[in-house]
Amino acid sequence: MKLLSYSLDGKIYFGPKVKKEEAVWDVLSIQETLQVLPNFPTTIVEGVSLGIDFVEQVRKLVEAALKDENVNSFKRRFTEIEWLSPIPRTPKNIFAVGKNYSDHAKEMGTEANEFVVFTKSPTAIAADEQTLSVHADLTSSYDYEGELAIVISKKGKNIPTKQAYDYVFGYTIANDLTARDLQTKHQQYFLGKSLDESCPLGPYVVTKDELPNPQALSIVTKVNDEIRQNGQTSDMVYSVEQIISEISKIVTLEPGDVILTGTPAGVGNGFNPPKFLKSGDIVKVSIEGIGTLVSKFE
Amino acid sequence: MKLLSYSLDGKIYFGPKVKKEEAVWDVLSIQETLQVLPNFPTTIVEGVSLGIDFVEQVRKLVEAALKDENVNSFKRRFTEIEWLSPIPRTPKNIFAVGKNYSDHAKEMGTEANEFVVFTKSPTAIAADEQTLSVHADLTSSYDYEGELAIVISKKGKNIPTKQAYDYVFGYTIANDLTARDLQTKHQQYFLGKSLDESCPLGPYVVTKDELPNPQALSIVTKVNDEIRQNGQTSDMVYSVEQIISEISKIVTLEPGDVILTGTPAGVGNGFNPPKFLKSGDIVKVSIEGIGTLVSKFE
Repeated sequence: MKLLSYSLDGKIYFGPKVKKEEAVWDVLSIQETLQVLPNFPTTIVEGVSLGIDFVEQVRKLVEAALKDENVNSFKRRFTEIEWLSPIPRTPKNIFAVGKNYSDHAKEMGTEANEFVVFTKSPTAIAADEQTLSVHADLTSSYDYEGELAIVISKKGKNIPTKQAYDYVFGYTIANDLTARDLQTKHQQYFLGKSLDESCPLGPYVVTKDELPNPQALSIVTKVNDEIRQNGQTSDMVYSVEQIISEISKIVTLEPGDVILTGTPAGVGNGFNPPKFLKSGDIVKVSIEGIGTLVSKFE
Repeated sequence: MKLLSYSLDGKIYFGPKVKKEEAVWDVLSIQETLQVLPNFPTTIVEGVSLGIDFVEQVRKLVEAALKDENVNSFKRRFTEIEWLSPIPRTPKNIFAVGKNYSDHAKEMGTEANEFVVFTKSPTAIAADEQTLSVHADLTSSYDYEGELAIVISKKGKNIPTKQAYDYVFGYTIANDLTARDLQTKHQQYFLGKSLDESCPLGPYVVTKDELPNPQALSIVTKVNDEIRQNGQTSDMVYSVEQIISEISKIVTLEPGDVILTGTPAGVGNGFNPPKFLKSGDIVKVSIEGIGTLVSKFE
């Protein structure tokens, strides 16, 4: 199932895409009107915490709507809603794994050996198709990093590698936008990675039942239709299972937490001369089975 | 005003200390019973977002309780409550400034020049007087860092230095517990700084009206009554005002955000041989005008 979040008249909603239509099911309205279930989450993070049961609940609501004579009243056309990131706000900073593809570590003049985790502020989350600032007042080396993002479904500590998938709700796409000059100047990555709108995330969360093997996906980043990154998640140094297990040895994971799994080679900083983002650029990050995350820069 | 948070029968409450008594005012119960105000926050972070008006509201509730014949029914004795950190959960990771006292930077074999910010997971927050693990399974170099902590009252971006205090709700004390070996091994500080219970914070938030000059406070850390850190907040490289201004150039600050302002010289790692924490140790961080934060290690 592909779930999205959106805003309408200042309120935040979530729901699955309507099949073959450019619209989303307003599942909250279905539940409110038809009272299909004894209870149903009011936020996506609450839903995510129910794991795969949430997917079943959403399916039941859509089935009930399809049988109702007012079926169309439960659909919201994409033209009338404002798209949000499917996880509009994480419960803590976004986790991000550094140097998790050896070719990328090499182009940054370093090596992929130790397990490196930094964070991005949740105030940096942006939506698909959003127009983003290149922050010319703050940086002259704003760079893209296409990444597979994991959405965590339940609280966990010391999660064994073999149980790691039990803690995954699904996957989405992230662009880990980075001000290279600030990343270097401030030594710790946090500031250079936390500019407003520096974490586009979306367009959908694809639930894990649809992506049984997250280590066999192609990941492609284009800038103005020029292919810059062309990687395979099979090349990760630490796999999705290992990342979850390693982080949870130290930090307690919670429902709605998002982990970025690192970027393959081909970032702007890796070219000679570097190819940093400029006003007018359009960046598209595509991951097999999830879709394409589009950002326009102004 | 000194505000604390506590738990009773599984619910989270907050309130000011009762003067000359080892008890806290249950302000939520005062409001519910006596209906003193048209409305009143139900969480401390909601209260913090009202700034100094919140302090006035709390004062009015306490005055009303003192005039009521059932005045004692609104007090909760310290022996019957479970103390929490005054900010039990921050809206995003805790911000922490690195190398903000030159003597500490020197003892760590580096220099205080650039503005360094890392984060600690909000799952690491612990209460005053809490018994904490030395995490012997994860680290053999667990270290203390006594610090002044800023509590932010309102949303802000690009805050000028001269307006920075407008965004402060108050101050508390933090111990930025750090696994030195993990801090080094994982390169970015986040993991080594985010072990469970590695951010004791408290005992009170002291509202800013009681601490007009946060740059003139003594800060002392004792381990088993041996003085290890004996600093002055006047020695900060970046002042409270500058820290708020610098971070807000890049990251949007929000009500309930907590910023740790760095630690003076005298951490365990600075001694030869190093003096890391061990089971049985008691660490006390005292800041003038705020109080003492006590952690027992097992």
